[in-house]
Amino acid sequence: MLMSTQMEQARNGIITAAMKTVAGKEGLTAEEIRLRVAAGSIVIPSNHNHTSLSPEGVGLGLRTKINVNLGISPECANLDSELAKVRMALDMKAEAIMDLSNYGKTAEFRHKLISMSPAMIGSVPMYDALGYLDKKLEEITPREFLDVVEQHARDGVDFVTIHAGINRETAQHFRKTSRVTNIVSRGGSLLYAWMELTGHENPFYEYFDDLLDICVKYDVTLSLGDACRPGSIADATDGAQISELIVMGELTQRAWKRNVQVMIEGPGHVPLQEVVTNVQLAKKLCHGAPFYILGPLVTDVAPGYDHITSAIGGALAASAGADFLCYVTPGEHLRLPTLDDVREGIVAVKIAAHSGDIAKGVPGAAEWDMKMSQARQALDWEKMFSLALDREKPERYRKESAPEHQDSCTMCGEMCSMRLMNRIMD
Amino acid sequence: MLMSTQMEQARNGIITAAMKTVAGKEGLTAEEIRLRVAAGSIVIPSNHNHTSLSPEGVGLGLRTKINVNLGISPECANLDSELAKVRMALDMKAEAIMDLSNYGKTAEFRHKLISMSPAMIGSVPMYDALGYLDKKLEEITPREFLDVVEQHARDGVDFVTIHAGINRETAQHFRKTSRVTNIVSRGGSLLYAWMELTGHENPFYEYFDDLLDICVKYDVTLSLGDACRPGSIADATDGAQISELIVMGELTQRAWKRNVQVMIEGPGHVPLQEVVTNVQLAKKLCHGAPFYILGPLVTDVAPGYDHITSAIGGALAASAGADFLCYVTPGEHLRLPTLDDVREGIVAVKIAAHSGDIAKGVPGAAEWDMKMSQARQALDWEKMFSLALDREKPERYRKESAPEHQDSCTMCGEMCSMRLMNRIMD
Repeated sequence: MLMSTQMEQARNGIITAAMKTVAGKEGLTAEEIRLRVAAGSIVIPSNHNHTSLSPEGVGLGLRTKINVNLGISPECANLDSELAKVRMALDMKAEAIMDLSNYGKTAEFRHKLISMSPAMIGSVPMYDALGYLDKKLEEITPREFLDVVEQHARDGVDFVTIHAGINRETAQHFRKTSRVTNIVSRGGSLLYAWMELTGHENPFYEYFDDLLDICVKYDVTLSLGDACRPGSIADATDGAQISELIVMGELTQRAWKRNVQVMIEGPGHVPLQEVVTNVQLAKKLCHGAPFYILGPLVTDVAPGYDHITSAIGGALAASAGADFLCYVTPGEHLRLPTLDDVREGIVAVKIAAHSGDIAKGVPGAAEWDMKMSQARQALDWEKMFSLALDREKPERYRKESAPEHQDSCTMCGEMCSMRLMNRIMD
Repeated sequence: MLMSTQMEQARNGIITAAMKTVAGKEGLTAEEIRLRVAAGSIVIPSNHNHTSLSPEGVGLGLRTKINVNLGISPECANLDSELAKVRMALDMKAEAIMDLSNYGKTAEFRHKLISMSPAMIGSVPMYDALGYLDKKLEEITPREFLDVVEQHARDGVDFVTIHAGINRETAQHFRKTSRVTNIVSRGGSLLYAWMELTGHENPFYEYFDDLLDICVKYDVTLSLGDACRPGSIADATDGAQISELIVMGELTQRAWKRNVQVMIEGPGHVPLQEVVTNVQLAKKLCHGAPFYILGPLVTDVAPGYDHITSAIGGALAASAGADFLCYVTPGEHLRLPTLDDVREGIVAVKIAAHSGDIAKGVPGAAEWDMKMSQARQALDWEKMFSLALDREKPERYRKESAPEHQDSCTMCGEMCSMRLMNRIMD
């Protein structure tokens, strides 16, 4: 039996099991989910071959989702250390994991990851292409690039990042902008290099219909990557970036005609005053497709703390309508993240997503804060820990610093305003 | 000779040494600074008796400043550990330190702090009152409260937080709002308790002119504290908070008539979508006086990570016109901050301040990012470290993870887009 995509079924009036699951998780009706999947404003990345998946929706009116990047590479070809990150991401309830493996036993890692993950799995097939094909970049043919995508799709990847928007025209705009940091997307820079070395059009743009065939077959969601995402705040919202976004919008409509689900990837490094503009532009130029962003980092000057610079941008972006946030760890710009870096990155992006959800009025978001504040007012420490976004750290902090009065903490002690007010207002 | 305040001199057309210093630091003319000090939109907290001070301006068009809270208390009466925090704050270029000491040798600590600090020093005399006067709260007289303020002023404190806005009328509004977290300001809750226990009006409101006498004498800047700042996002922007803000606006004009410099203190816990509103309300209701905020924390659910929740709110607030950010450490709501907590809090608030400065177009702000991105593009690691907001952590991260190629890092290694693009574009 040929299975069809979530989008095709939605458009045919069919409510799928995945739509029901998503509706249950979001507190919406399955019909509301179906309508938005049909319109393209929600995606449910769910490859037919990812049988362990617990589907999540990404898009309009839904809780902001988060993604954790990991994968094996020449710098860390150790499967176990990357699998430890997978387990941590799953324990911390990340809705998505992107496998950025680019070296070594990538297929083995991918198979393990997919079979163990209820979280949706994304990949960047371009990263895997060089190692998988074992060829020089310029010798890879368009067909071979597509073969790698199909291999990932067959393995059960739920969404693939494809930098199809950096075509020859976008590349022209890029060359005219004289950027501070050129192209900082890895996949994007590889494609640009391939185009320069071969003189040919971007294979994913030229053979976009063949790419859609693969997406239709497995119901792989297309995550249109932004090769020209700014790598410095000076490069944000420039001609290169926005011209690529226009092409991505056109490709979105072509994909939708084939009932292929689409997400749009966004920057990057963006100064605070341009974050909302970027979300609006992406949503507008790409016809309301779900917006997935990396960061954005609102300043370039804080290496070692880019989980914070990106939490600022991510919270603001989510509040303005971004649907899906990719975590950034303290290791960004410096090193492959350690397990601790991964943990810190996940906490920071969850804070950003939740702050955005409160602002955009996602049902249930502010209620969580209400419960925490009621527990705080009642000086109910156990309840505060159980409601904490991350339980381990606050519990440890309190243990390390034993208060004189069990109901207060060492910050204010005797002078605790909560205690005093509770006494005065009795 | 009786020395007058910065504001009085500004209004008399006099450019003081402090105005010249501030102008030099900000890249503005001394006349621009004078005009704004005269109008009240800039303050230069600089007590005549704080001789080690290197004056800073706080307010319209200036770089956003940051404050570090510390001080001795029953939970940490050890002067040395608090002095270590002072040294760290000074090393990390905090423009202000607030001494929240409330127990033990507070006078000794304050004297040491002031004599060693080029940073401006603030205090909350109310915290010190109980220990200093060694009396039950309800037995303290209005005159005694003022005596403590005068003691701090005589010692050289540059600005004092005074919760004068929570008068009987504000207290009525507070009682009608049925808040989740009542009054969470320590000084505010003590004053509210005093009012409830004695039946009298807030002494700082009733004897505001006497308070101004002290401020005039030493040129102490009045930082009007917000007793009704929300302690949970549910309580933000409510009748209690805004009615107090209206009173603070009226007191601001009374202070300005006496040539006393004024700052307005703000919340607290505020959901992201109300942060800009809060800044606008404070600026409007308080006639453009500089706005000094604690946080705001955009969610209540992340104890252990409130340096991040407040960096989100602080960055957005600064971008909207907040002039002065108080740091929040990971220990907030949990314990007195350790030295490490202080360090993390300072870095986070500096990120917030700088991100806001880029957004509000403070001269020179974005240029820092430009230099960093140029260094990144050139793969010049030494330059990146020297430009980093905090140098220690990125340098340590890189050392801990030695890359194969000295020009790249272990995050992307061979696949570094910067390296690839530099090669392709040559």
